[in-house]
Amino acid sequence: MENVESLAWREKKRRLLNKCRIFDLYEVEKESPNGEDGSFYLLDSPDWVTVIPLVHGKDGVENFLMVKQYRHGSSEITLEFPAGMIDPEELPLAAAERELLEETGYRTGNIIEIGAVSPNPAFMNNTSYTFLARNLDLIKEQNLDKDEFIHFHLVPVPEVLKNMGTGQYSNGVMMMALAYYNRFISSSS
Amino acid sequence: MENVESLAWREKKRRLLNKCRIFDLYEVEKESPNGEDGSFYLLDSPDWVTVIPLVHGKDGVENFLMVKQYRHGSSEITLEFPAGMIDPEELPLAAAERELLEETGYRTGNIIEIGAVSPNPAFMNNTSYTFLARNLDLIKEQNLDKDEFIHFHLVPVPEVLKNMGTGQYSNGVMMMALAYYNRFISSSS
Repeated sequence: MENVESLAWREKKRRLLNKCRIFDLYEVEKESPNGEDGSFYLLDSPDWVTVIPLVHGKDGVENFLMVKQYRHGSSEITLEFPAGMIDPEELPLAAAERELLEETGYRTGNIIEIGAVSPNPAFMNNTSYTFLARNLDLIKEQNLDKDEFIHFHLVPVPEVLKNMGTGQYSNGVMMMALAYYNRFISSSS
Repeated sequence: MENVESLAWREKKRRLLNKCRIFDLYEVEKESPNGEDGSFYLLDSPDWVTVIPLVHGKDGVENFLMVKQYRHGSSEITLEFPAGMIDPEELPLAAAERELLEETGYRTGNIIEIGAVSPNPAFMNNTSYTFLARNLDLIKEQNLDKDEFIHFHLVPVPEVLKNMGTGQYSNGVMMMALAYYNRFISSSS
Protein backbone atom coordinates (compact mmCIF):
# COMPACT_ATOMS: atom_id res chain seq x y z
CA MET A 1 0.00 0.00 0.00
CA GLU A 2 1.32 3.40 -0.90
CA ASN A 3 2.42 5.57 2.03
CA VAL A 4 1.31 9.07 1.10
CA GLU A 5 3.13 10.52 4.07
CA SER A 6 6.29 9.68 2.17
CA LEU A 7 5.43 12.56 -0.17
CA ALA A 8 5.11 15.34 2.43
CA TRP A 9 7.84 17.93 2.95
CA ARG A 10 8.50 19.55 6.31
CA GLU A 11 8.91 23.29 6.74
CA LYS A 12 12.02 24.38 8.61
CA LYS A 13 11.79 28.16 8.41
CA ARG A 14 10.46 30.97 6.28
CA ARG A 15 11.73 34.44 5.39
CA LEU A 16 9.50 37.35 4.40
CA LEU A 17 10.66 38.86 1.10
CA ASN A 18 7.87 41.35 0.31
CA LYS A 19 4.66 42.52 1.94
CA CYS A 20 2.26 43.29 -0.87
CA ARG A 21 -1.33 44.45 -0.34
CA ILE A 22 -2.78 41.33 -1.90
CA PHE A 23 -0.31 38.73 -0.59
CA ASP A 24 2.99 38.38 1.27
CA LEU A 25 5.91 36.74 -0.55
CA TYR A 26 8.03 34.31 1.47
CA GLU A 27 10.99 32.07 0.77
CA VAL A 28 10.47 28.83 2.68
CA GLU A 29 13.17 26.35 3.65
CA LYS A 30 11.89 22.80 3.66
CA GLU A 31 13.14 19.26 4.11
CA SER A 32 12.19 16.60 1.61
CA PRO A 33 10.89 13.13 2.41
CA ASN A 34 14.46 11.96 1.85
CA GLY A 35 15.89 14.48 4.27
CA GLU A 36 17.31 16.81 1.62
CA ASP A 37 16.94 20.59 1.81
CA GLY A 38 14.99 22.65 -0.69
CA SER A 39 13.71 26.21 -0.85
CA PHE A 40 10.36 27.28 -2.24
CA TYR A 41 8.52 30.53 -2.87
CA LEU A 42 5.17 31.01 -1.15
CA LEU A 43 2.48 33.65 -1.63
CA ASP A 44 0.76 33.89 1.76
CA SER A 45 -2.60 34.98 0.44
CA PRO A 46 -6.04 35.92 1.77
CA ASP A 47 -8.96 33.70 0.80
CA TRP A 48 -11.01 34.68 -2.22
CA VAL A 49 -14.75 34.68 -2.86
CA THR A 50 -16.66 34.49 -6.14
CA VAL A 51 -20.42 35.05 -6.27
CA ILE A 52 -22.57 33.69 -9.07
CA PRO A 53 -25.72 35.87 -9.20
CA LEU A 54 -28.51 34.04 -10.97
CA VAL A 55 -31.32 36.32 -12.17
CA HIS A 56 -34.59 35.19 -13.74
CA GLY A 57 -35.64 37.29 -16.68
CA LYS A 58 -39.28 38.22 -17.31
CA ASP A 59 -39.31 36.00 -20.38
CA GLY A 60 -38.26 32.97 -18.35
CA VAL A 61 -34.65 33.13 -19.47
CA GLU A 62 -32.09 32.72 -16.71
CA ASN A 63 -29.21 35.17 -16.67
CA PHE A 64 -25.98 35.62 -14.79
CA LEU A 65 -25.17 39.09 -13.53
CA MET A 66 -21.63 39.61 -14.81
CA VAL A 67 -19.20 42.44 -14.21
CA LYS A 68 -16.90 43.86 -16.86
CA GLN A 69 -13.58 45.14 -15.60
CA TYR A 70 -9.94 45.67 -16.44
CA ARG A 71 -7.62 43.03 -15.02
CA HIS A 72 -4.14 44.32 -14.17
CA GLY A 73 -2.36 40.96 -14.46
CA SER A 74 -3.46 40.10 -17.97
CA SER A 75 -4.01 43.75 -19.02
CA GLU A 76 -7.32 42.64 -20.48
CA ILE A 77 -10.93 43.63 -20.02
CA THR A 78 -12.88 40.61 -18.82
CA LEU A 79 -16.50 39.67 -18.16
CA GLU A 80 -16.72 37.84 -14.82
CA PHE A 81 -18.78 37.02 -11.76
CA PRO A 82 -18.43 39.46 -8.86
CA ALA A 83 -15.42 38.45 -6.81
CA GLY A 84 -12.87 39.71 -4.35
CA MET A 85 -10.66 39.00 -1.36
CA ILE A 86 -12.05 37.99 2.01
CA ASP A 87 -11.08 40.48 4.72
CA PRO A 88 -9.22 39.35 7.85
CA GLU A 89 -11.70 37.88 10.36
CA GLU A 90 -14.48 38.00 7.74
CA LEU A 91 -16.47 34.82 7.10
CA PRO A 92 -16.74 33.70 3.45
CA LEU A 93 -20.53 34.14 3.43
CA ALA A 94 -20.25 37.72 4.69
CA ALA A 95 -17.58 38.44 2.07
CA ALA A 96 -19.83 37.04 -0.64
CA GLU A 97 -22.72 39.24 0.44
CA ARG A 98 -20.44 42.26 0.68
CA GLU A 99 -18.83 41.76 -2.76
CA LEU A 100 -22.24 41.19 -4.38
CA LEU A 101 -23.60 44.41 -2.87
CA GLU A 102 -20.49 46.51 -3.54
CA GLU A 103 -20.02 45.40 -7.13
CA THR A 104 -23.61 45.12 -8.34
CA GLY A 105 -25.84 46.92 -5.85
CA TYR A 106 -27.83 43.73 -5.23
CA ARG A 107 -28.54 41.88 -1.98
CA THR A 108 -30.30 38.59 -1.36
CA GLY A 109 -31.17 36.26 1.48
CA ASN A 110 -30.74 33.28 -0.83
CA ILE A 111 -26.98 32.82 -1.03
CA ILE A 112 -25.24 29.49 -0.49
CA GLU A 113 -21.71 28.13 -0.73
CA ILE A 114 -21.33 25.68 -3.60
CA GLY A 115 -17.59 25.03 -3.61
CA ALA A 116 -14.16 25.73 -2.14
CA VAL A 117 -10.78 24.92 -3.68
CA SER A 118 -7.09 25.74 -3.52
CA PRO A 119 -6.92 27.93 -6.63
CA ASN A 120 -3.17 27.54 -7.07
CA PRO A 121 -1.70 25.09 -4.53
CA ALA A 122 1.73 25.09 -6.18
CA PHE A 123 2.72 28.34 -4.46
CA MET A 124 -0.38 29.84 -2.86
CA ASN A 125 -1.89 28.76 0.47
CA ASN A 126 -5.37 30.24 0.16
CA THR A 127 -8.86 28.94 -0.55
CA SER A 128 -11.21 30.27 -3.22
CA TYR A 129 -14.90 30.01 -2.21
CA THR A 130 -17.78 30.02 -4.68
CA PHE A 131 -21.31 31.11 -3.74
CA LEU A 132 -24.57 30.98 -5.67
CA ALA A 133 -26.91 33.92 -5.13
CA ARG A 134 -30.54 33.83 -6.23
CA ASN A 135 -33.68 35.96 -5.77
CA LEU A 136 -31.76 39.20 -5.97
CA ASP A 137 -33.25 42.53 -4.84
CA LEU A 138 -31.81 45.80 -6.05
CA ILE A 139 -30.82 47.70 -2.90
CA LYS A 140 -28.70 50.62 -3.99
CA GLU A 141 -26.31 51.75 -6.62
CA GLN A 142 -22.90 50.15 -6.88
CA ASN A 143 -20.47 51.12 -4.14
CA LEU A 144 -17.04 50.85 -5.67
CA ASP A 145 -13.53 51.39 -4.35
CA LYS A 146 -11.71 54.32 -5.86
CA ASP A 147 -9.69 51.93 -8.01
CA GLU A 148 -12.64 49.94 -9.26
CA PHE A 149 -14.22 50.75 -12.59
CA ILE A 150 -16.89 48.10 -13.10
CA HIS A 151 -19.75 47.83 -15.55
CA PHE A 152 -22.28 45.07 -15.04
CA HIS A 153 -24.32 43.08 -17.52
CA LEU A 154 -27.08 40.47 -17.53
CA VAL A 155 -25.88 37.58 -19.71
CA PRO A 156 -28.02 34.54 -20.59
CA VAL A 157 -26.73 31.46 -18.79
CA PRO A 158 -26.26 29.38 -21.97
CA GLU A 159 -24.00 32.09 -23.40
CA VAL A 160 -21.73 31.96 -20.35
CA LEU A 161 -21.71 28.15 -20.27
CA LYS A 162 -20.66 28.10 -23.93
CA ASN A 163 -17.95 30.78 -23.74
CA MET A 164 -16.43 30.47 -20.28
CA GLY A 165 -12.67 30.16 -20.54
CA THR A 166 -12.45 31.89 -23.93
CA GLY A 167 -12.26 35.46 -25.19
CA GLN A 168 -13.53 38.02 -22.69
CA TYR A 169 -14.32 35.17 -20.27
CA SER A 170 -10.63 34.37 -19.85
CA ASN A 171 -10.30 34.02 -16.08
CA GLY A 172 -9.48 30.65 -14.54
CA VAL A 173 -11.04 31.54 -11.19
CA MET A 174 -14.35 32.04 -12.99
CA MET A 175 -13.94 28.64 -14.67
CA MET A 176 -13.64 27.10 -11.19
CA ALA A 177 -16.80 28.92 -10.07
CA LEU A 178 -18.80 27.81 -13.10
CA ALA A 179 -17.67 24.21 -12.63
CA TYR A 180 -19.17 24.25 -9.14
CA TYR A 181 -22.34 25.80 -10.58
CA ASN A 182 -22.63 23.04 -13.18
CA ARG A 183 -22.20 20.37 -10.52
CA PHE A 184 -24.75 22.05 -8.24
CA ILE A 185 -27.33 22.30 -11.01
CA SER A 186 -26.76 18.66 -12.05
CA SER A 187 -27.14 17.43 -8.50
CA SER A 188 -30.31 19.47 -7.99
CA SER A 189 -32.09 18.17 -11.08
CA MET B 1 -23.02 51.98 -26.45
CA GLU B 2 -20.51 51.18 -23.76
CA ASN B 3 -16.94 52.17 -24.49
CA VAL B 4 -14.84 49.35 -23.09
CA GLU B 5 -11.66 51.30 -23.67
CA SER B 6 -12.83 53.54 -20.86
CA LEU B 7 -11.98 50.68 -18.50
CA ALA B 8 -8.34 50.16 -19.53
CA TRP B 9 -5.45 51.41 -17.41
CA ARG B 10 -2.12 52.52 -18.90
CA GLU B 11 1.23 51.31 -17.55
CA LYS B 12 3.72 54.07 -16.79
CA LYS B 13 6.61 52.10 -15.34
CA ARG B 14 7.46 48.95 -13.44
CA ARG B 15 10.00 48.09 -10.76
CA LEU B 16 11.39 44.59 -10.16
CA LEU B 17 10.99 43.61 -6.50
CA ASN B 18 12.10 39.94 -6.56
CA LYS B 19 13.30 37.44 -9.11
CA CYS B 20 11.92 34.08 -8.08
CA ARG B 21 12.46 30.87 -10.03
CA ILE B 22 8.80 30.49 -10.86
CA PHE B 23 7.89 34.16 -11.44
CA ASP B 24 9.27 37.70 -11.10
CA LEU B 25 7.48 40.09 -8.74
CA TYR B 26 7.01 43.66 -9.98
CA GLU B 27 5.38 46.79 -8.66
CA VAL B 28 3.72 48.55 -11.60
CA GLU B 29 2.77 52.22 -11.75
CA LYS B 30 -0.33 52.79 -13.84
CA GLU B 31 -2.70 55.56 -14.82
CA SER B 32 -6.44 55.03 -14.52
CA PRO B 33 -9.04 55.84 -17.15
CA ASN B 34 -9.63 59.04 -15.17
CA GLY B 35 -5.98 60.00 -15.21
CA GLU B 36 -5.30 59.09 -11.59
CA ASP B 37 -2.21 57.18 -10.50
CA GLY B 38 -2.30 53.71 -8.94
CA SER B 39 0.26 51.02 -8.18
CA PHE B 40 -0.29 47.30 -8.62
CA TYR B 41 1.65 44.11 -7.95
CA LEU B 42 2.37 41.83 -10.90
CA LEU B 43 3.73 38.30 -11.04
CA ASP B 44 5.49 38.08 -14.42
CA SER B 45 5.02 34.37 -14.91
CA PRO B 46 5.86 31.67 -17.44
CA ASP B 47 2.99 29.94 -19.19
CA TRP B 48 1.70 26.69 -17.74
CA VAL B 49 0.64 23.43 -19.35
CA THR B 50 -1.69 20.72 -18.06
CA VAL B 51 -2.01 17.38 -19.84
CA ILE B 52 -5.09 15.17 -19.49
CA PRO B 53 -3.97 11.61 -20.31
CA LEU B 54 -6.97 9.47 -21.25
CA VAL B 55 -6.32 5.73 -21.08
CA HIS B 56 -8.71 3.00 -22.16
CA GLY B 57 -8.84 0.07 -19.78
CA LYS B 58 -9.11 -3.52 -20.97
CA ASP B 59 -12.62 -3.71 -19.56
CA GLY B 60 -13.78 -0.74 -21.62
CA VAL B 61 -13.57 1.72 -18.71
CA GLU B 62 -11.90 5.01 -19.51
CA ASN B 63 -9.34 6.24 -16.99
CA PHE B 64 -7.33 9.38 -16.44
CA LEU B 65 -3.66 8.96 -15.60
CA MET B 66 -3.30 11.10 -12.50
CA VAL B 67 -0.22 12.03 -10.49
CA LYS B 68 -0.12 12.25 -6.73
CA GLN B 69 2.24 14.83 -5.31
CA TYR B 70 2.88 17.23 -2.46
CA ARG B 71 1.96 20.84 -3.22
CA HIS B 72 4.13 23.39 -1.40
CA GLY B 73 1.61 26.23 -1.49
CA SER B 74 -1.25 24.40 0.16
CA SER B 75 1.01 21.92 2.02
CA GLU B 76 -1.34 19.17 0.83
CA ILE B 77 -0.96 15.99 -1.14
CA THR B 78 -3.09 16.23 -4.25
CA LEU B 79 -4.16 13.97 -7.12
CA GLU B 80 -3.82 15.87 -10.40
CA PHE B 81 -3.18 15.73 -14.13
CA PRO B 82 0.48 16.02 -15.13
CA ALA B 83 1.38 19.69 -15.37
CA GLY B 84 4.24 22.12 -15.30
CA MET B 85 5.73 25.35 -16.53
CA ILE B 86 6.54 25.97 -20.18
CA ASP B 87 10.24 26.68 -20.70
CA PRO B 88 11.41 29.87 -22.40
CA GLU B 89 11.16 29.46 -26.20
CA GLU B 90 9.29 26.18 -25.76
CA LEU B 91 5.98 25.74 -27.60
CA PRO B 92 2.99 24.65 -25.50
CA LEU B 93 2.62 21.38 -27.42
CA ALA B 94 6.26 20.48 -26.84
CA ALA B 95 5.91 21.33 -23.15
CA ALA B 96 2.84 19.10 -22.92
CA GLU B 97 4.69 16.18 -24.50
CA ARG B 98 7.68 16.76 -22.24
CA GLU B 99 5.65 16.97 -18.99
CA LEU B 100 3.67 13.87 -19.92
CA LEU B 101 6.85 11.91 -20.57
CA GLU B 102 8.77 13.22 -17.55
CA GLU B 103 5.95 12.73 -15.05
CA THR B 104 4.39 9.50 -16.28
CA GLY B 105 6.80 7.82 -18.68
CA TYR B 106 4.19 7.90 -21.46
CA ARG B 107 4.39 9.37 -24.93
CA THR B 108 1.73 9.63 -27.65
CA GLY B 109 1.26 11.07 -31.12
CA ASN B 110 -2.37 11.88 -30.29
CA ILE B 111 -2.14 15.07 -28.20
CA ILE B 112 -4.21 18.17 -28.91
CA GLU B 113 -4.78 21.54 -27.28
CA ILE B 114 -8.29 21.85 -25.88
CA GLY B 115 -8.12 25.17 -24.04
CA ALA B 116 -6.08 28.18 -22.95
CA VAL B 117 -6.97 30.70 -20.24
CA SER B 118 -5.52 33.38 -18.00
CA PRO B 119 -5.45 31.36 -14.77
CA ASN B 120 -5.31 34.41 -12.49
CA PRO B 121 -5.58 37.65 -14.48
CA ALA B 122 -5.87 39.79 -11.34
CA PHE B 123 -2.11 39.78 -10.84
CA MET B 124 -0.58 37.22 -13.19
CA ASN B 125 0.11 37.74 -16.89
CA ASN B 126 0.49 34.15 -18.04
CA THR B 127 -1.60 31.64 -19.96
CA SER B 128 -2.46 28.13 -18.79
CA TYR B 129 -2.81 25.66 -21.68
CA THR B 130 -4.71 22.37 -21.46
CA PHE B 131 -3.97 19.40 -23.70
CA LEU B 132 -5.77 16.07 -24.15
CA ALA B 133 -3.51 13.05 -24.72
CA ARG B 134 -4.88 9.74 -25.97
CA ASN B 135 -3.47 6.43 -27.25
CA LEU B 136 -0.60 6.45 -24.81
CA ASP B 137 2.44 4.18 -25.23
CA LEU B 138 4.68 3.42 -22.30
CA ILE B 139 8.15 4.57 -23.36
CA LYS B 140 10.31 4.56 -20.27
CA GLU B 141 10.22 5.00 -16.56
CA GLN B 142 9.43 8.38 -15.06
CA ASN B 143 12.18 10.97 -15.38
CA LEU B 144 11.76 13.26 -12.42
CA ASP B 145 13.57 16.35 -11.25
CA LYS B 146 15.45 15.93 -8.03
CA ASP B 147 12.71 17.82 -6.19
CA GLU B 148 9.86 15.83 -7.67
CA PHE B 149 8.35 12.93 -5.79
CA ILE B 150 5.43 11.78 -7.87
CA HIS B 151 3.30 8.65 -7.79
CA PHE B 152 0.89 8.05 -10.63
CA HIS B 153 -2.50 6.34 -10.66
CA LEU B 154 -5.14 5.28 -13.18
CA VAL B 155 -8.45 6.71 -11.99
CA PRO B 156 -11.80 6.02 -13.68
CA VAL B 157 -13.05 9.13 -15.47
CA PRO B 158 -16.43 9.23 -13.63
CA GLU B 159 -14.61 9.31 -10.30
CA VAL B 160 -12.60 12.36 -11.34
CA LEU B 161 -15.64 14.10 -12.82
CA LYS B 162 -17.51 13.58 -9.56
CA ASN B 163 -14.74 14.65 -7.17
CA MET B 164 -12.78 17.33 -9.01
CA GLY B 165 -12.46 20.41 -6.83
CA THR B 166 -12.90 18.54 -3.55
CA GLY B 167 -10.67 16.61 -1.15
CA GLN B 168 -7.46 15.38 -2.74
CA TYR B 169 -8.57 16.95 -6.05
CA SER B 170 -8.27 20.45 -4.61
CA ASN B 171 -6.40 22.31 -7.35
CA GLY B 172 -8.12 25.07 -9.32
CA VAL B 173 -5.84 24.67 -12.32
CA MET B 174 -7.06 21.08 -12.64
CA MET B 175 -10.67 22.31 -12.47
CA MET B 176 -9.91 24.55 -15.46
CA ALA B 177 -8.42 21.62 -17.35
CA LEU B 178 -11.38 19.33 -16.63
CA ALA B 179 -13.81 22.06 -17.72
CA TYR B 180 -12.10 22.13 -21.12
CA TYR B 181 -12.26 18.32 -21.23
CA ASN B 182 -16.01 18.34 -20.52
CA ARG B 183 -16.59 20.91 -23.25
CA PHE B 184 -14.44 18.95 -25.72
CA ILE B 185 -16.28 15.69 -25.02
CA SER B 186 -19.70 17.40 -25.31
CA SER B 187 -18.79 18.99 -28.60
CA SER B 188 -17.44 15.71 -29.96
CA SER B 189 -20.53 13.66 -29.17
